[in-house]
Amino acid sequence: MIDKRIVETIGFDADDTLWESNNFYIDVSEKFYEIMRRYCSDAEIRAAFVAREEDNIAELGYGAKAVILSMIETAIRLYPSIESRVIEEIIAAGRVLFRVPTIMLPNVCETIEALQKKYRVIIITKGEVSEQSRKFDNSPLPHDIPYFILGDKSPESYRRLLKRENIPCESFLMVGNSPRSDVLAPVEIGAQACYIPYHTTWAHEDMPIPEHERIATLSDIGDLRHILL
Amino acid sequence: MIDKRIVETIGFDADDTLWESNNFYIDVSEKFYEIMRRYCSDAEIRAAFVAREEDNIAELGYGAKAVILSMIETAIRLYPSIESRVIEEIIAAGRVLFRVPTIMLPNVCETIEALQKKYRVIIITKGEVSEQSRKFDNSPLPHDIPYFILGDKSPESYRRLLKRENIPCESFLMVGNSPRSDVLAPVEIGAQACYIPYHTTWAHEDMPIPEHERIATLSDIGDLRHILL
Repeated sequence: MIDKRIVETIGFDADDTLWESNNFYIDVSEKFYEIMRRYCSDAEIRAAFVAREEDNIAELGYGAKAVILSMIETAIRLYPSIESRVIEEIIAAGRVLFRVPTIMLPNVCETIEALQKKYRVIIITKGEVSEQSRKFDNSPLPHDIPYFILGDKSPESYRRLLKRENIPCESFLMVGNSPRSDVLAPVEIGAQACYIPYHTTWAHEDMPIPEHERIATLSDIGDLRHILL
Repeated sequence: MIDKRIVETIGFDADDTLWESNNFYIDVSEKFYEIMRRYCSDAEIRAAFVAREEDNIAELGYGAKAVILSMIETAIRLYPSIESRVIEEIIAAGRVLFRVPTIMLPNVCETIEALQKKYRVIIITKGEVSEQSRKFDNSPLPHDIPYFILGDKSPESYRRLLKRENIPCESFLMVGNSPRSDVLAPVEIGAQACYIPYHTTWAHEDMPIPEHERIATLSDIGDLRHILL
């Protein structure tokens, strides 16, 4: 049960909380699998790509460039005699991610506008600066909402950010679709969290949400008005 | 002539101001040129890579992953029958950038420590979050220095950041080695700037520094103590 009396600042995750993201990544990986099925089985390419992406997170981080490099590396490893024009096809498929429109999810703009009357609203995302800033700039959200891009959303990253911004952990509520990044991490440092599942979640981020007094699960972002206003 | 009486916050650029960066990028591109000289002339590969990097900035932004993708694209365009094992070599050459140590430039730590007694010190860099955070975390600087990673350092990006952090432009002084990003951009929004040239500067960033009452050029970061303390 969220305690709204102590909340001062609300942090929103961006990808798949405010706007569509994972769908675009799924489209790109499906296109990649289609290209690679010329050389190997569907199961083989899917397994190899997922494993390579996971291995690459530590060095490459998140975002479109990491995905493109992981696709190239997967393709070369699976099929060393691959021709360079196929690698170009793979790059072209991935580059689509730099040009996708910012498609807002339902009820986002009204909800944020309503909450801003009572709370400080910030956005906390992870990934790469070039890609995330473009999505935010292309969104209809007021551009003066503080927008923070973290390398990862670990408890330690939240702790650092909140300290730097003078936000006491217990006055902070995080809202997002990733159990690990948006719910468990902030709750671990004493904040509250609202989990709003998205219909697809990247396997790397997915995990069960425990019963916890500082976590609420909502089916729609608009429900925030009921529990916070 | 810098007016220290109005300065409250000092922003430091990171790459080639606090620690070595461009040298590592030069090493990687030289390694790339060496690989490609098997297939084309030195002049050809250098020109093609510089042009591709510049073209890619808008979509790929800055940093190691952008460099690796630009190298792959340059190689494929120049020599379409390139074998995948050579592309792997190129990726391996670029991946070195994710593992380079944070080598502090002379006098940085003492200077920041001294300035922190009188001013609020922050770090403002651009590039990719994963790469920049790693360098900062591996540095001996106090980890509670606010560290901001921007997608670019345009006047507008500075304006937004300073506004979000409640720093009046005229109370801000930026210190860095890039004429465009660290000096001209902050000065354009009313801040002061100290230019500390580094012996190599990426062509994309280089330009002449005009005579300006709010710009000082220093030969060593340690000189900041003389003009600010």
